[in-house]
Amino acid sequence: MTWYVACLSGDLRRKPVARMIDGTPLALFRDGAGVAVALLDRCPHRNVPLSYGTVEQGLLQCCYHGWRFDGAGACRAIPGLAAGAETDKRARRAEAFPTAEHDGFVWVQTDTSPANGAGPYRFPHVEAPGYTTVRKHVRFSAGLHACLENTLDVPHTAFLHGGLFRGNREPVEIEVVVRAIADGVEAEYLGEPRPEGLAARILAPEGGVLTHFDRFLLPSVAQVEYRLGENHLVNTAAFTPVSEFETDLHAAITFHLRMPHAPVRAAITPVVNRILHQDSVVLRRQSEAIQRFGGEQFASTELDVLGQHIRKLLRQAERGESPAPGETTEVRRVTMRV
Amino acid sequence: MTWYVACLSGDLRRKPVARMIDGTPLALFRDGAGVAVALLDRCPHRNVPLSYGTVEQGLLQCCYHGWRFDGAGACRAIPGLAAGAETDKRARRAEAFPTAEHDGFVWVQTDTSPANGAGPYRFPHVEAPGYTTVRKHVRFSAGLHACLENTLDVPHTAFLHGGLFRGNREPVEIEVVVRAIADGVEAEYLGEPRPEGLAARILAPEGGVLTHFDRFLLPSVAQVEYRLGENHLVNTAAFTPVSEFETDLHAAITFHLRMPHAPVRAAITPVVNRILHQDSVVLRRQSEAIQRFGGEQFASTELDVLGQHIRKLLRQAERGESPAPGETTEVRRVTMRV
Amino acid sequence: MTWYVACLSGDLRRKPVARMIDGTPLALFRDGAGVAVALLDRCPHRNVPLSYGTVEQGLLQCCYHGWRFDGAGACRAIPGLAAGAETDKRARRAEAFPTAEHDGFVWVQTDTSPANGAGPYRFPHVEAPGYTTVRKHVRFSAGLHACLENTLDVPHTAFLHGGLFRGNREPVEIEVVVRAIADGVEAEYLGEPRPEGLAARILAPEGGVLTHFDRFLLPSVAQVEYRLGENHLVNTAAFTPVSEFETDLHAAITFHLRMPHAPVRAAITPVVNRILHQDSVVLRRQSEAIQRFGGEQFASTELDVLGQHIRKLLRQAERGESPAPGETTEVRRVTMRV
Repeated sequence: MTWYVACLSGDLRRKPVARMIDGTPLALFRDGAGVAVALLDRCPHRNVPLSYGTVEQGLLQCCYHGWRFDGAGACRAIPGLAAGAETDKRARRAEAFPTAEHDGFVWVQTDTSPANGAGPYRFPHVEAPGYTTVRKHVRFSAGLHACLENTLDVPHTAFLHGGLFRGNREPVEIEVVVRAIADGVEAEYLGEPRPEGLAARILAPEGGVLTHFDRFLLPSVAQVEYRLGENHLVNTAAFTPVSEFETDLHAAITFHLRMPHAPVRAAITPVVNRILHQDSVVLRRQSEAIQRFGGEQFASTELDVLGQHIRKLLRQAERGESPAPGETTEVRRVTMRV
Repeated sequence: MTWYVACLSGDLRRKPVARMIDGTPLALFRDGAGVAVALLDRCPHRNVPLSYGTVEQGLLQCCYHGWRFDGAGACRAIPGLAAGAETDKRARRAEAFPTAEHDGFVWVQTDTSPANGAGPYRFPHVEAPGYTTVRKHVRFSAGLHACLENTLDVPHTAFLHGGLFRGNREPVEIEVVVRAIADGVEAEYLGEPRPEGLAARILAPEGGVLTHFDRFLLPSVAQVEYRLGENHLVNTAAFTPVSEFETDLHAAITFHLRMPHAPVRAAITPVVNRILHQDSVVLRRQSEAIQRFGGEQFASTELDVLGQHIRKLLRQAERGESPAPGETTEVRRVTMRV
Repeated sequence: MTWYVACLSGDLRRKPVARMIDGTPLALFRDGAGVAVALLDRCPHRNVPLSYGTVEQGLLQCCYHGWRFDGAGACRAIPGLAAGAETDKRARRAEAFPTAEHDGFVWVQTDTSPANGAGPYRFPHVEAPGYTTVRKHVRFSAGLHACLENTLDVPHTAFLHGGLFRGNREPVEIEVVVRAIADGVEAEYLGEPRPEGLAARILAPEGGVLTHFDRFLLPSVAQVEYRLGENHLVNTAAFTPVSEFETDLHAAITFHLRMPHAPVRAAITPVVNRILHQDSVVLRRQSEAIQRFGGEQFASTELDVLGQHIRKLLRQAERGESPAPGETTEVRRVTMRV
């Protein structure tokens, strides 16, 4: 049971929404009770994608012959059938997928792996009092691992995003501790003085040393957390594999600060958009080369603190193996100039 | 000997016309006598498509070195050859295909199946006195069967083309009789009151019950015929397979009405264009899903009165089997709400 | 050791240049001494193409994490590494290719065939006193052989480029002598009166009979040479295979004339551009047909004086066989109307 985010709650209104999760095309819509539901995006009749249709009285209506389906995939109407004829037969049902919605995101479970009882991941602090959340959706032209590593990679920030977050002062050497954690791996950055960029200045107006964690959590969550005194900012990115070289990012940037939140939100949104655009461009270029050369050929250094751990965890999950036990274990320490 | 329409007569003038029939690229042109002819669209010399060339004195001249070919594919000129040198050798001939022209359409026979003596299909009533014909050419992004079924499908008309032909009043139940006929299959719709759309109002200004036949005729003709008293309208669509998901429609909409034909022609042309556009969009969407899922997976109802018969006849024809004998046989009866 | 032109010297300035040679993507740049160098266009770290980066102090800097490489491919900087950590390890090196620059062109050697001691081809007369050179770069959508044959083909000039060079007067019969030469094949055109086009008028204002050679030289040079008295014009086209249906042309049109060179240069540039455009269009059409039919199927005549010799020499070179010995041998004589 792997849950992935399909779309933002706010993107699913009156019209159906088409999404692809790991090669499975979906038509999402809200049923009569407003509950988000997901059907395979193919009308059982003549295979036209249901997402081109409309939502009528909580049913998804195909645009070709007007067949209507409920949230469980049952066929509820076939225009033209004689009065009293049965509409819902097994072959006329659209496949439905388990769906859940919370924290402003719609999650779908498309794979057929055995249930493990766990529901979708909960974005932390989104519902907590005193926190504000900015939500984003971006499509990256890159595979899941490349996106996860990019999100949790520190060295590229001073360079690719130079001036936006890091990169404005002489680098200093800090220590990074990598730990195995429940369902994932984390890196803690010890002793990094506050960077000079706008986002960091908002978090720590008077400077100081940040508490900074980067985390990967199965199946596909990348999380960056900063604290300084009462100030707290968590960027949680839930990635959704679309195809081999396409991945959707759905992120919640959640913060609790001493200063007023509205101007902070207004100030950081263009910075976030700029950073996402720069990452999007470089990830597309990376995919271009990987496809042109017929595969990856990476040379890593000790600065690539999480990439190989993420790859190992993704492969274990693919093989259906259980992740590491819940106890936190230190894996290694690295010196990094930031 | 399978004949398909290559182009409208009116589209073949001074310039050569490029067409693809079932994967075979053709260059069509008019020879010195104005006769439509068709050559394989590849110069035997350096393989540039001949259709990029020009017609000079009834010969098709390649745009690269100026070689010229007659309608039988013989090479008649090679600029640069010494005086007296032979131009026409076996390897220098362009393959020519049997071609015929009547009713305003140019037909070509590209396959190598054995001759059965039959020429191309004749569009009925086109040459009959008192009839007017509107001709159309549309390229659909869909396979042959999907296009044929779409043309002969009644239930989608009230829905996809809602208001243009059917769909403006409460549906009534009518009976449909399906019959095997010579070289095909037909459906007769019994007792349908005149629909409310413009086209139906023109056909039957005072209302009444239509005589309505839908027919499929091998290899690829879909025909819809309406009669009410003296008024008569036949839409004959001759489809040409281009590639797996591309099909050309060449249609003759032929009518004989009590009212003046010129304003009718002016009034129905935009309606026909709108209907063809709506079908074109939905067929492209259908192809998109079929390609994405790696094949069709259709669930049919009794309302899909002709689709499966058409598929069976197409498959028999592909295997070279003779179609059903010429006697008309009732196959089944269906109740449909229209 | 096969050398191909990668780019014009003038196109390689402050920014890196991306080129593909025979399927190998390259990032070209100038090192600290201004020397043109070529690296495999893939950062060893995370595989982003290096050509998207920048040149910093003679080093090529990747746009993602800022790794820097010298002209030999050694990794010289990895931002973030602790002070004193080694940057250059075997796995972190970018593959470098032998590069040379002269006559205004940058050459690269990408294959792994054994060295034969020969450097890249030298464009003749480019450095000679009294000569002027116009340099061109064009990407053709066609394979190497098709481009070579096109450049050295006489009959298409009167037709495809009609009026620009040949094709303005009644053709006359001349004799063509084909000879095997060192590393190639040449055709000498005997007794052609000066054509009427602008280029020919510049070369021979008072008319007369041209001395005219067409040459193919391994691995990929096509050369057309005209002389009349003191007037001399050589068009040398060095082709670079890019992919199966893409080929780069880098040409030096070099001339020595009795009239002032500046106005000649101004006058022939648009003519050259027009001829290259016409060839580009017809070659793309040819490729289109070859791909559509799954391969070439050519019928040649005695007018195709060099095409088959070029093909044979290219195939020998591919198999690593030595070309014909250096002595010039007459192969055949052809009569051609030009």
